[in-house]
Amino acid sequence: MVRTIDWIDGAIELIDQTRLPGALEKRRITTLDDLIVDIQRLAVRGAPALGVAGALGVAMIAQQASSLDEVHANAALLREARPTAVNLSWGVDRVMKRIDEGPAAVLTEALAIRDEDVAASISMGLYGADLVRSLVTREKARIMTICNTGGLAAVERGTALGVIQTIFEQGWLEEAFPVETRPLLQGARLTAWELTQMGAPFRLLVDSAGPFLLSRGIADAVFIGADRIAANGDTANKVGSFSLALAAQRAGVPFIVVAPESTVDVNTETGEDIEIEDRGSEEVTNFAGLRTAPEGTRTVNPAFDVTPHDLITAIVTDRRIVRPALGQTMRNVDLGPTRTV
Amino acid sequence: MVRTIDWIDGAIELIDQTRLPGALEKRRITTLDDLIVDIQRLAVRGAPALGVAGALGVAMIAQQASSLDEVHANAALLREARPTAVNLSWGVDRVMKRIDEGPAAVLTEALAIRDEDVAASISMGLYGADLVRSLVTREKARIMTICNTGGLAAVERGTALGVIQTIFEQGWLEEAFPVETRPLLQGARLTAWELTQMGAPFRLLVDSAGPFLLSRGIADAVFIGADRIAANGDTANKVGSFSLALAAQRAGVPFIVVAPESTVDVNTETGEDIEIEDRGSEEVTNFAGLRTAPEGTRTVNPAFDVTPHDLITAIVTDRRIVRPALGQTMRNVDLGPTRTV
Repeated sequence: MVRTIDWIDGAIELIDQTRLPGALEKRRITTLDDLIVDIQRLAVRGAPALGVAGALGVAMIAQQASSLDEVHANAALLREARPTAVNLSWGVDRVMKRIDEGPAAVLTEALAIRDEDVAASISMGLYGADLVRSLVTREKARIMTICNTGGLAAVERGTALGVIQTIFEQGWLEEAFPVETRPLLQGARLTAWELTQMGAPFRLLVDSAGPFLLSRGIADAVFIGADRIAANGDTANKVGSFSLALAAQRAGVPFIVVAPESTVDVNTETGEDIEIEDRGSEEVTNFAGLRTAPEGTRTVNPAFDVTPHDLITAIVTDRRIVRPALGQTMRNVDLGPTRTV
Repeated sequence: MVRTIDWIDGAIELIDQTRLPGALEKRRITTLDDLIVDIQRLAVRGAPALGVAGALGVAMIAQQASSLDEVHANAALLREARPTAVNLSWGVDRVMKRIDEGPAAVLTEALAIRDEDVAASISMGLYGADLVRSLVTREKARIMTICNTGGLAAVERGTALGVIQTIFEQGWLEEAFPVETRPLLQGARLTAWELTQMGAPFRLLVDSAGPFLLSRGIADAVFIGADRIAANGDTANKVGSFSLALAAQRAGVPFIVVAPESTVDVNTETGEDIEIEDRGSEEVTNFAGLRTAPEGTRTVNPAFDVTPHDLITAIVTDRRIVRPALGQTMRNVDLGPTRTV
């Protein structure tokens, strides 16, 4: 398995996810401008991967800068590249705490974040799989998911899709149902590709089919990732998550968020306080260079939505399971161990 | 305004809606095979337009057939071209009742259906606009809608989009919010085109953004069309309608179905009894000839979903307003007049 993002021979290497599923291409990033452009055009995306990109990006900046002021200025540019995902700024901020120790210390901290991300994915997979086992009465589980939350959204394995992978490896995944995830089709392009790579059974849905098919009993649980989790459990994630949560609640199907602790932002009280990135018209009115709407069409294109905590059965992190629908918050549930077996 | 479907110089003429918004092209249909293919590839679509297509199709068959048996056999093929929309079989069945009077009588009946469709759209627009006026407290209305339910879905003006057009003509449409409507993008391709043609203000959304933006108060009402309305008010319509209904209910926004009486099927007790057409993988895994998912990807691709009656604030037809969420059914509310002013 090629890592989604890594530090190789003194530079950042990442898979260009805009080229999948057609081509698996790696890019070598040696400038801040290239890194910011790749983050904004979603060559690298997914909350955990963005945390690692932020950390490795500062390591790169620190090696190249001629002054501390330059590092601070460039780190500020990097942390603003995408506003909704808290992991990016979290990664930047955590390694910047060591900037006074010099570039080597910054790189050490960044590599620690990378390694912790791999460990967190394993832990989330185990916590998540045990939770599904406790919630689902069928022998094998059918799980719906949105966007891409697999290895391509992290360094390895990922969050929600990482749980599905764990269940598949444990031998009790009946079928996965990824929704395609408009406008950029991360479900169709990336999640379907990852499921194909791992040999897991799945069928792809358009986004709107997800809520309807939940109402018809097609799945036993919905798993999503997160870009930011507020203190009360409200969760910002790819637009479409809220629809699935509404339908899951009506159908009595567990709706579960999977994200590392770095996605939790206790400084944000509720989902109302989360800035939602609008990505402009081009993604909606064009597809692969072909216009799909009349010239002059304006859009509203929120990349994310907010699922209120009352719709969330559980939040699974690398260190705990929180039950927002039962009144638990990210503040009143203590951390547990990072699991490795 | 070019009519979407009509009978011109002894044959069916229809706009090829697969070519919009790039090109406005008419097709002249002179064989049953061509008509069935055009219905199945959605060159002509929309519940009311399918009713007219069914009626005019039988008129064409009746003129060409050498025996009554042949007419019956061909009419049976035509009425099965698409299973969910009740209007198609309704149009076929209604004109077939006059088959014993000969081809001229059949054509007369088919042209009556065409003319009644135009009148029904005007009536629905008036009933619908008055309903919105009574439900919305803002001076101008902001209305969300899905798929295409305008003139292109009927002969002229249409159903849900016809109401929006009426409100626009009356001078109190603030903005329309069509969702793009995957997989075939009828919202982006057709509704955005019709709104542009009429000069109405609108912004386009991906399907999943609709529910989220309803939760943020972007619209005052949701209007949808219908492909089949069961006796209890459960409504089959383009997949994605159910998501909007769930979000509208949570946001306290009226969710309104607009359809002619020919869409009401009192022989279908509830939505559970409605057959949902699955249109196969190609629409989901490819876009304009480009693969968007890995080779071998399977899909579930329901063209429609079912919105339960408890989520439906009102059903507006050309002859009445029914309130399913208040316990009214299509059986216990009497017909009123077709409105013309």
